[in-house]
Amino acid sequence: MEIKKPRGTRDFLFNEMEERKYVENTLRRIFETYGYSEIKTPIFEELSLFTTKSGEGIKEQIYHFQDKGGRDLALRPELTAPVARLYLNELQKTPKPIKMYYFGSCFRYERPQAGRFRQFWQFGCELIGGKVPSSEAEIIAMSGHCLEELGLEGYEINIGNLGILRNIINGAGIFGEEHDQIMGLIDKGDVEALQDLLNKLEVDDRSRETLLKLIGMKGDGSILDEVEEIISYNEKSLEALKEVRELLEALEAFDFHDYIVNLGIARGLDYYSGTVFEIYVHGLGAQKQISGGGTYNLIEIFGGEEVESTGFAFGFDRVMEALRKQKAEIPVTGHVDVFVAPINKDVKLKAFEIAQKLRKSGVSTDVDLAGKKLKKVLSHANTAGIKYVVLVGARELEEGKVTVKNMESGEQELVDLLEITNYFQN
Amino acid sequence: MEIKKPRGTRDFLFNEMEERKYVENTLRRIFETYGYSEIKTPIFEELSLFTTKSGEGIKEQIYHFQDKGGRDLALRPELTAPVARLYLNELQKTPKPIKMYYFGSCFRYERPQAGRFRQFWQFGCELIGGKVPSSEAEIIAMSGHCLEELGLEGYEINIGNLGILRNIINGAGIFGEEHDQIMGLIDKGDVEALQDLLNKLEVDDRSRETLLKLIGMKGDGSILDEVEEIISYNEKSLEALKEVRELLEALEAFDFHDYIVNLGIARGLDYYSGTVFEIYVHGLGAQKQISGGGTYNLIEIFGGEEVESTGFAFGFDRVMEALRKQKAEIPVTGHVDVFVAPINKDVKLKAFEIAQKLRKSGVSTDVDLAGKKLKKVLSHANTAGIKYVVLVGARELEEGKVTVKNMESGEQELVDLLEITNYFQN
Repeated sequence: MEIKKPRGTRDFLFNEMEERKYVENTLRRIFETYGYSEIKTPIFEELSLFTTKSGEGIKEQIYHFQDKGGRDLALRPELTAPVARLYLNELQKTPKPIKMYYFGSCFRYERPQAGRFRQFWQFGCELIGGKVPSSEAEIIAMSGHCLEELGLEGYEINIGNLGILRNIINGAGIFGEEHDQIMGLIDKGDVEALQDLLNKLEVDDRSRETLLKLIGMKGDGSILDEVEEIISYNEKSLEALKEVRELLEALEAFDFHDYIVNLGIARGLDYYSGTVFEIYVHGLGAQKQISGGGTYNLIEIFGGEEVESTGFAFGFDRVMEALRKQKAEIPVTGHVDVFVAPINKDVKLKAFEIAQKLRKSGVSTDVDLAGKKLKKVLSHANTAGIKYVVLVGARELEEGKVTVKNMESGEQELVDLLEITNYFQN
Repeated sequence: MEIKKPRGTRDFLFNEMEERKYVENTLRRIFETYGYSEIKTPIFEELSLFTTKSGEGIKEQIYHFQDKGGRDLALRPELTAPVARLYLNELQKTPKPIKMYYFGSCFRYERPQAGRFRQFWQFGCELIGGKVPSSEAEIIAMSGHCLEELGLEGYEINIGNLGILRNIINGAGIFGEEHDQIMGLIDKGDVEALQDLLNKLEVDDRSRETLLKLIGMKGDGSILDEVEEIISYNEKSLEALKEVRELLEALEAFDFHDYIVNLGIARGLDYYSGTVFEIYVHGLGAQKQISGGGTYNLIEIFGGEEVESTGFAFGFDRVMEALRKQKAEIPVTGHVDVFVAPINKDVKLKAFEIAQKLRKSGVSTDVDLAGKKLKKVLSHANTAGIKYVVLVGARELEEGKVTVKNMESGEQELVDLLEITNYFQN
């Protein structure tokens, strides 16, 4: 019998774990520097939490099941809905703004392929009750700060605004499902299908032309003047544009200049309402998007009072993949500094004693538990990057001493047992 | 509509998360000091991984479901079987001993009650290919070291040996299911039912008396002489006893003296073969067991080559509960040191600029995103334990300065903007 891990899942071993923890801890540090505090929600939620937000169709893409009490549960496919639920359950009376971050795994049922897994990790945050566009600017600047700190190169932060697009579509008299279909095609970037749909819906010429022009607008802040001209006939769209201008102004104040305005961004999820942004890294192929977020009205959808909410998440696995492809330097340190080896069996217990003394003084220490021959110990120490081997021999012990071998220089030194913890702490 | 978290699960908020992370990081540090490296396995596994080990009966107690491809999957109820699977899949050729540790959530379907949750966390390790009893001694000493470091009091590390018991039962001619039933009743501590069963199975007098005496043996190492007398007629049991003596000797070498020999420990799981141990904390009621482990032959059960394997895990939630009940000091630090507040709207962007400068220099900084009045800012800073508030006013800005208020002393100071990062870094 051989049991394998389930399809589309991964085991993480030593070095890879270390690399992931380094990136995790870097993100943690930066999120906390911006005043975010960590929270954790359950791995599974009521299925309705996700169908309320995204419709019954989502069931095709997620793991859901009934528990023994007949409850419909789902392994969470993302973390914004759970955090909104947590806010509604427990934090409505907490003074705002509330800054929360999370790191956890999510699940989706889909054909596994390069860079897409059935269990994957998200590192993200939600800012509830902060004013837009200031809050959006802070979040976008933070996402850039994270990538800078990780040493990731060639990333592109694209900022769009759904208010501009939606008001043009509404202005053409298109609401509800047809409206969402249009947004969906914009999100996919499928211009041809979009044109067909606009024709089929008999959208007026001006609205059609405006939309098709808008979704091609991409560049620095200077494109906003042209956008203003294109949408000049639509008051509400103009208001949304004003918000974009304020956002860019705040971004400059947050010392973040490296953005691209891209009005073709629509985000796949229907609960985004204003500013949206996505981060791409070139060279990752179809999985180039490593992050996405924006301002949403999910809390109202769940029946809560209206509150301005902005959030984003890094696709953690994709960030790791991008760093790996760029051969970014991720510091990985072997944990063990010292290996204690008895030269023969009689002194085994003495070796345990010495190892334990070192550990209690905070020195990472391993000790021979397998009765290895000295040659094997030394070759293991070499492979594992261990710095010192303490050789415990009966003759030296008589004088209260052990031999310490520096694995880098090859030098050996007799060390008094009374001095052994000092020796390694200095 | 109000969606709640699923029954038996928890959300973790800010302070509780900090406390949990402190404990998690302390355990991490100590495990690594003993040469363990972290690994991670998937949240769900093939159902057969758990039924192979524990029988079909386990299905009653776990979350299992079919995915859309018809695979039988289970949310993992524990982590030893997944780690054994990982070893078989990926590490059989790695030089031994292999020291792995994990921290992750597990799931069981049972009636939620005090201290028992449907999603719970385990922090544990597996040592594969180390010799017993040295490896067992090291693991037990490490578990004690962890609790000492956490400042937990009143814990009791109970050490038993299944070899002593099993050989007495085998000696009475009882194998297979009936054997397991006896072990199950010993594990439960149900002496009456045990007596009934022994009678029903017509176990001979000597074996019956021996078993009933053994499971009541509890004390320091000195009880082993009496145990030796009781089992003196059974060669194999005597051999197992010799292993216990060696274990205690090694424990002394590992500077661990605070154990209780308790031959009534049987562990509920049938894959344990020799030394077993459990840690209890008084005052936790029915949930007093915070840890358990021992030596097992799971890898052989899964079809691998025989290899000595020892492991244990802390019930992380119970450790937290024990620390809370004992009011142990768990350092929780507010993350934000500085709050930047514009005195009026005109200088909002300048406040963003200053906050960002501080963050880039590594100072945890929050900035007003909600247009709060000064009074509210100061009361928030007080509640949140923020150390300094930077007041940004138009008049001071003209001179290139801001006012820094020390929230502890109440003192205010004018600080040059060019000096602001130095001010907080020192």
